[in-house]
Amino acid sequence: MAPPILSFVGRSNSGKTTLIERLIPELTQAGYRVSTIKHAGHGFELDTEGKDSWRHKRAGASTVIVLSKGSMAMFADVPEEMKIEEVRDQFVNSEIDLIIAEGWKSEGYPKVVVVREALDEVPVSPDGLLAIVSMKPIANTPVPCIDRDNIKQLAEIVIKHFPHRSSYT
Amino acid sequence: MAPPILSFVGRSNSGKTTLIERLIPELTQAGYRVSTIKHAGHGFELDTEGKDSWRHKRAGASTVIVLSKGSMAMFADVPEEMKIEEVRDQFVNSEIDLIIAEGWKSEGYPKVVVVREALDEVPVSPDGLLAIVSMKPIANTPVPCIDRDNIKQLAEIVIKHFPHRSSYT
Repeated sequence: MAPPILSFVGRSNSGKTTLIERLIPELTQAGYRVSTIKHAGHGFELDTEGKDSWRHKRAGASTVIVLSKGSMAMFADVPEEMKIEEVRDQFVNSEIDLIIAEGWKSEGYPKVVVVREALDEVPVSPDGLLAIVSMKPIANTPVPCIDRDNIKQLAEIVIKHFPHRSSYT
Repeated sequence: MAPPILSFVGRSNSGKTTLIERLIPELTQAGYRVSTIKHAGHGFELDTEGKDSWRHKRAGASTVIVLSKGSMAMFADVPEEMKIEEVRDQFVNSEIDLIIAEGWKSEGYPKVVVVREALDEVPVSPDGLLAIVSMKPIANTPVPCIDRDNIKQLAEIVIKHFPHRSSYT
């Protein structure tokens, strides 16, 4: 079974990366194996100039892989616009329990919206919306509105929506 | 068909990375899609501290993927000792024409030995040995001994041994 996808959407600098960074340990402690996928901004350097991997990639290698004691880095050419499913199917190990994506708000994945104080900061369809994470309370939301420091509540909602796949427990 | 593997073996600092860096453009100009795989030394940092990908990985994600306009970086946990075939089967796109590996000298892949001036600098079985690359000429070698600036001769040997897979020409 392909790992399910949960997308975090919100303006840049809304705190998505930090929120995900704080959510991951809650999920791994609950036994989840998590993968994250994100877009980098324009002109972002994926590797570091001068490294051997960078030199091989620049020389024209389509894919460069570096292994180091239980860890691996891969740098590869991919199509310009990849859907998350395509990234998942090509690169993510099927033993992953949950893929957390930053962005891809227009695609129909279950999602969490990250805002500062108002829901309309981010135009997003209510379909698949699991929760709103906000710095300030918001009244009358269609789904739970969570304070962004209440990571445990967010984790509970995520765990409830994506029950751990028992085959890996 | 799984992409074939060519291994470059030699002491550290023998110039393997630079040699591969110079060989890649010769191969890509001949229509090859090349992947490189190498081991990094102890304590090598695959990512850069502080980057979002580094933060997600440190937080406990098993796999972190960053996409940027036609490029992709992936950082993943892998088993401590992976054979090249395992890396290939799990991560390398099947459309790659040739995998160039640095190291793995004990495995039975076709290989090129990189030395400074004497063949016995690197104990390696003659099985599968395609060429010796040396800074100084070596007499009576069982396979061609190539000056390390003669990249074209090296490319010819590689291309002859790994004919381009016509389905991709």
